[in-house]
Amino acid sequence: MDINEFREFGKAAIDFVADYLENIRDRDVLPSVEPGYLHDMLPGKLQNEPEDWKTIMEDFKRCILPGLTHWQSPHFHAFYPSQTSYSSIVGETLAAGLGVVGFSWICSPVCTELEVIMMNWLGQLLNLPKTFLNCDEGNGGGIIQGSASESIFVAVLAAREQAVRRLRAEHPDLTESEIRGRLVAYTSDQSNSAVEKAGILGAIKMRLLPADETSILRGSTFIQAVEEDKANGLFPVICVATLGTTGTCAYDNLAEIGPYCNEHNIWLHIDAAYAGAALCLPEYAHIMKGAELADSLNFNLHKWMFVNFDCCAMWFKDAASVTQSFSVDRIYLQHQFQGHSKAPDYRHWQIQLGRRFRSLKVWITLRTMGAEQIRNLIRFHIQLANRFEEYVRTDDRFEVVCSTLALVCFRLKGDDAQSKQLLDNITKRKKIFMIPATYQGKFIIRFMICGIDPQMHDIEYAWDEVRSQADLLLGVDQNRNQLVKGEPKQYEKSSEIGKITESITGMMISSEKGQ
Amino acid sequence: MDINEFREFGKAAIDFVADYLENIRDRDVLPSVEPGYLHDMLPGKLQNEPEDWKTIMEDFKRCILPGLTHWQSPHFHAFYPSQTSYSSIVGETLAAGLGVVGFSWICSPVCTELEVIMMNWLGQLLNLPKTFLNCDEGNGGGIIQGSASESIFVAVLAAREQAVRRLRAEHPDLTESEIRGRLVAYTSDQSNSAVEKAGILGAIKMRLLPADETSILRGSTFIQAVEEDKANGLFPVICVATLGTTGTCAYDNLAEIGPYCNEHNIWLHIDAAYAGAALCLPEYAHIMKGAELADSLNFNLHKWMFVNFDCCAMWFKDAASVTQSFSVDRIYLQHQFQGHSKAPDYRHWQIQLGRRFRSLKVWITLRTMGAEQIRNLIRFHIQLANRFEEYVRTDDRFEVVCSTLALVCFRLKGDDAQSKQLLDNITKRKKIFMIPATYQGKFIIRFMICGIDPQMHDIEYAWDEVRSQADLLLGVDQNRNQLVKGEPKQYEKSSEIGKITESITGMMISSEKGQ
Repeated sequence: MDINEFREFGKAAIDFVADYLENIRDRDVLPSVEPGYLHDMLPGKLQNEPEDWKTIMEDFKRCILPGLTHWQSPHFHAFYPSQTSYSSIVGETLAAGLGVVGFSWICSPVCTELEVIMMNWLGQLLNLPKTFLNCDEGNGGGIIQGSASESIFVAVLAAREQAVRRLRAEHPDLTESEIRGRLVAYTSDQSNSAVEKAGILGAIKMRLLPADETSILRGSTFIQAVEEDKANGLFPVICVATLGTTGTCAYDNLAEIGPYCNEHNIWLHIDAAYAGAALCLPEYAHIMKGAELADSLNFNLHKWMFVNFDCCAMWFKDAASVTQSFSVDRIYLQHQFQGHSKAPDYRHWQIQLGRRFRSLKVWITLRTMGAEQIRNLIRFHIQLANRFEEYVRTDDRFEVVCSTLALVCFRLKGDDAQSKQLLDNITKRKKIFMIPATYQGKFIIRFMICGIDPQMHDIEYAWDEVRSQADLLLGVDQNRNQLVKGEPKQYEKSSEIGKITESITGMMISSEKGQ
Repeated sequence: MDINEFREFGKAAIDFVADYLENIRDRDVLPSVEPGYLHDMLPGKLQNEPEDWKTIMEDFKRCILPGLTHWQSPHFHAFYPSQTSYSSIVGETLAAGLGVVGFSWICSPVCTELEVIMMNWLGQLLNLPKTFLNCDEGNGGGIIQGSASESIFVAVLAAREQAVRRLRAEHPDLTESEIRGRLVAYTSDQSNSAVEKAGILGAIKMRLLPADETSILRGSTFIQAVEEDKANGLFPVICVATLGTTGTCAYDNLAEIGPYCNEHNIWLHIDAAYAGAALCLPEYAHIMKGAELADSLNFNLHKWMFVNFDCCAMWFKDAASVTQSFSVDRIYLQHQFQGHSKAPDYRHWQIQLGRRFRSLKVWITLRTMGAEQIRNLIRFHIQLANRFEEYVRTDDRFEVVCSTLALVCFRLKGDDAQSKQLLDNITKRKKIFMIPATYQGKFIIRFMICGIDPQMHDIEYAWDEVRSQADLLLGVDQNRNQLVKGEPKQYEKSSEIGKITESITGMMISSEKGQ
């Protein structure tokens, strides 16, 4: 492929992406393929001869598109969002074009320095305690990791190594492997599977403590577990608390957990993968209470801050605690600016040696949007979820189980079987995509605001689908089924809902203008 | 940013990348900035208002470009290559535009299935033993990891957990922590720092065994270490062998190491991050000797197979060995097609939960090039290195220390100080970028073929720079300095070199046509 073909192919790709995202609502959000579908469409081995980009682009449309689940569709309400933005896509393109690998300052100074600056911008945007920032006097610092899983794992490993060093000094009678064998970590049974996996991979016992009836890890549960373990000669190392659990977006009680961690030399990590974005809103500052006691925390820009996957911001209160554990140097990695405070060698803050230039898409996205639009969009997504919640509440066959930020958890009243069947029926129709969770022992359906540009009519579309499928399942009010046919349409307001609509119309319009 | 602005910005980015890569030789390969330069150019916090893409693009050129080390420049001869290609950049753009996260089949079937197929294509292109492929009858399988560091770490962790399970059954008298405390892993002192780090992070003693005088780990050294450790009650777990060490591209002796590993239940992982690409050439099949005995291996497409960073192919002979160790499931991750052989849940093969759609850029790049062009380009890069080696050999002030694939290691004869000074002077001039290593206790300079489209005149440019700087340093033959001034130019052939040039002109031309 020569440079002119690249210009053509690249621009065709941009146009494709624009067309795809602009018309994404026209597609079923879930694909209609069976496992193995692609094996029947592609040859078993690479051919010898080069192929023209137009042929490849045709095959892309024919073979690749049908196998997609459309995460950027506003009809996607599963998992958590992985919202991208137009500016972020361009940022990724530019980073791929520059093709640098930033494992040390000399490998591309801007790659390190822009990341330092972006982590400060983000820390301030999220109103984090200054002690976490690179720009503070202290030892704080931020880094972009790939994912929350990596950040959690890094925190567990850094805490483990720090604890082993301390415990070896405190317990000269024990061998290192005796110490390692007694290490124990804590999290709630509602934390992401990545936390449990970090325990397995880190060879450290990870206790999944029972969350309370609202899915929150409470201080008393945590403290009791630690005291038990200490009495049995174990060494507590780290508590991974969650701000926004995957199931129901519950917030562990940091104000109860944090002080005990600090007093007892237990590393506190906060996984705020999803909810972290809401910290940019002053009205959500209360969920941060106790976060100043943490040793590290992470939030995913690729969830709810409009930067495409992967991009996870992680801060340490004492960056030396990780670099001391992770640092391995060789002659071919040394350079004259090692140790400079504005040029940290980020490779010692992470698992991998190599590093992508992720801060570029962050910089481009943040500037394209500006702080106010980011705050407005996040508020708007919360309002969209509130609207869905109101719809559910207008229908007395349903109950809203819990609702936090842009997540609404609901179910059909009665036993689980009907809600399971409803979700199954909806999933098979592929018009919207939701996933289940459990709450207080009951099967619930999660409705999450996702996609690149969700609007109020998408909520109406989703509610039409849910309500009409409930009608079909429960055998009542068949006339309502008309509403789900055809394309997304303006919802006919009921009197209850009309009031809510009017109250947020101003916000809708201002948000729709933006990004 | 609305959809029309995206089209404009995206196409401007494509044009920028095309212009940048087309004219990349015009820039010094190393930047002229001091640590902290960017902190003085960018504001300390994000502004409130959105900014226009044109403003951002201007700032990109003003603030970002000067801070780059140009990895895609053919004047970059440091580390190992991280060659991208035009088609791969478009692939990354499309993947960013689709914005899917592929942690299970249902999250986008094509994301999983294309990866399965690409790993088979690649395995066949590299002539790997069939037992590693997904398409074989056995339990083999491939996955795309982010980097060699991750692959090595995954191998260490999987081997560790598998060993612990086996040893617990074999040694019911020992506690799990006693077993874990006795685990030991092996690699050579020439392996990448990522191997040592995998030992630290995996909490397993990693012995850095002395390589022989040609930087190769020999079977006798390895076997002696294992026998010693066994006699001391330790449990050998894994040997991480390297095909193409970072310092000098040495190949550990797999044929000596492998049979012992297989006989003694020691996992054999092969890190072929760089050299793996050469396996597509039949004339390099010999370096694979013994690789059929490995349990896992990795090579980086983002090094020498024209796919932009990050993209590391990893194969297992028995994929269950990793999934058994890494699998943690929750209700929100379950789906009806779990366990389908053509739709593996790749999240259980890796550290992270989230997954980018990396196979898309692989598919686009491989098809754009075709197998024959890939082989020709890799051969051509080896010839470019051979040319550089010949230049060095024509100058009796220098010695070629070793030379493998597209890496030439050389030095000034005599003590290390002069070679160090020469490299230092060259680095300060920023015309070409090379890094040092050590070999047989001596300081050496590594000259690596890198960049998006290296050509013979780039080798001449580099040699002019090296030779003229040696002239300046050693105070001889001052007239030669004229050669380095100005832009890259046709090298005036000496009689020795003329013959070599002629013999490979045919290959040069056919390769220049491609990609």
